[in-house]
Amino acid sequence: MQLEFLGTGSGVPGKFRNVSSTALKLLDECNSVWLFDCGEGTQQQILRSNLKPRKINKIFITHLHGDHIFGLPGLLSSRSFQGGNTPVTIYGPKGIKDFVEISLGVSKTKLSYKIKYEEFSEAGVLFDNKLFKVVAETLDHQIKSFGYRVIEKDHQGELLVDKLKEAKIPSGPIYGKLKNGETVTLDDGRTVNGKDFIGQSQKGRVITIIGDTRSNPNSYKLSEDADVLVHESTFGKGESRLAHNYYHSTNMQAAKLAKKANVGKLLLTHISARYTGKMAKELQNQAKSIFNNTKVVKDFDVIDIPFDKKV
Amino acid sequence: MQLEFLGTGSGVPGKFRNVSSTALKLLDECNSVWLFDCGEGTQQQILRSNLKPRKINKIFITHLHGDHIFGLPGLLSSRSFQGGNTPVTIYGPKGIKDFVEISLGVSKTKLSYKIKYEEFSEAGVLFDNKLFKVVAETLDHQIKSFGYRVIEKDHQGELLVDKLKEAKIPSGPIYGKLKNGETVTLDDGRTVNGKDFIGQSQKGRVITIIGDTRSNPNSYKLSEDADVLVHESTFGKGESRLAHNYYHSTNMQAAKLAKKANVGKLLLTHISARYTGKMAKELQNQAKSIFNNTKVVKDFDVIDIPFDKKV
Ligand SMILES: [Zn+2]
Ligand SMILES: [Zn+2]
Repeated sequence: MQLEFLGTGSGVPGKFRNVSSTALKLLDECNSVWLFDCGEGTQQQILRSNLKPRKINKIFITHLHGDHIFGLPGLLSSRSFQGGNTPVTIYGPKGIKDFVEISLGVSKTKLSYKIKYEEFSEAGVLFDNKLFKVVAETLDHQIKSFGYRVIEKDHQGELLVDKLKEAKIPSGPIYGKLKNGETVTLDDGRTVNGKDFIGQSQKGRVITIIGDTRSNPNSYKLSEDADVLVHESTFGKGESRLAHNYYHSTNMQAAKLAKKANVGKLLLTHISARYTGKMAKELQNQAKSIFNNTKVVKDFDVIDIPFDKKV
Repeated sequence: MQLEFLGTGSGVPGKFRNVSSTALKLLDECNSVWLFDCGEGTQQQILRSNLKPRKINKIFITHLHGDHIFGLPGLLSSRSFQGGNTPVTIYGPKGIKDFVEISLGVSKTKLSYKIKYEEFSEAGVLFDNKLFKVVAETLDHQIKSFGYRVIEKDHQGELLVDKLKEAKIPSGPIYGKLKNGETVTLDDGRTVNGKDFIGQSQKGRVITIIGDTRSNPNSYKLSEDADVLVHESTFGKGESRLAHNYYHSTNMQAAKLAKKANVGKLLLTHISARYTGKMAKELQNQAKSIFNNTKVVKDFDVIDIPFDKKV
């Protein structure tokens, strides 16, 4: 599981930061990539990464501002052109379907795959399958904006093979049943409960991706105990009034949230072009004074989110 | 007058060629820039050029395929963000207004300037003012596609100051009148006709920009005696059948047109990503065998189109 940042700028593309898009790479988990927002030029950024558009099967839109959606028609078209033929689901605020459908319609684009739209206008669970659950919460932006909490399901404990051997339980198909927690009767007459031979289950990872927003209580709900929190940081220290007026956040507000919500790591993105190299570092240092494990990400940064097995 | 190529690729963006957009820089002529097509990422290309979005006041769309229009909403938004406040006119096939208006509407984008739409579905004169006349002709593509002929008005002859001095006509406000071709009575009683003191008028330049198309007769109409012909070249020598099937042209077809139409220079664009550096050169050499003054352009090429004063 990795996060790859395809666009870390704010509002308009700059020379060094493209407009918003973040990829959550779930190659080991389910051989897919999920995209969060898709500003103009996202497909060009993908060309410069090692991401394969055909692996993108879910796209989550935080809000409908142009710097978060104008790359969607192009990405969807190119995904088709490059041989993508499996469906894509687009989750986003009401309006995203109109935008995509009219763009593809006007341009007479025929896709080689189906798009499924999951539009919503309120908080809720977007889906819940064997591997992941994704929850959306409303934020506080000029227009409806959402944050996403991606919750990996707990990993089942491993079969304790050494313990089975100690108990002289012969290996074979029986191990599969025990691993599923079933109770099994052995040839020697013993009855064995699989649950006694399965290690502790391991908590899955939680990734929180917050769209454009003012500081607000729902961000805390989304972030609580997350392994990684991706948060916008359009403004810097001392600019909370500006941030409020423009419906955005400062680095300090994001850091306070990270601390209060007890997250593992804070990644700051949506950085204004006013903050060039050195100043972006300063944004990071300011935030670190509140929450030490903070990083201001830049385009093409890849952040690994390893699954830490506890023994 | 210069042409600056912002995207010279075909269909989808590649690492080295972005999707279609060509700027006609008319800074000396009328302090403006006209854009022909606006594929996704055009605004990012502009960032890497010395073009100023606020100087773009006319945008011509050849056809509605995504690689020619998906950059329009973003460019228009950023132009506003960067302080553009003068109107923009968009000329293009019916449908372009819906695409732009819905994109700006869904994203709640408020522009600081007005967009005027000039949609059309047939050949005709798009406008005709003191400096330029622009004519559109239908081409032969899978969907309605147009070519544009930009005709600069003839430059009025210069006032022949030496001849005036020889005739002992004293300088002063009278020179302005003579330059306008008026007849003037001098203090010494002589009557002087301005027309006798104005040099030969000079033919204006003609730039032809052809959208995606199969080889077709209207391209000739648009190109006749043009100073510069910009033509697509999606396919190469020996691929005219492929070109036909995909509603595109080969380099050889473009070169034959250039020769027949007696143009000054042929610029080949809309180059497939299959043609990398060396092979693009080969496309050029093949075309040169028919029409010598041919160039396969690449992104950020600037082609000067000087006004040749004839004495
Ligand atoms: Zn926003
Ligand atoms: Zn086309």
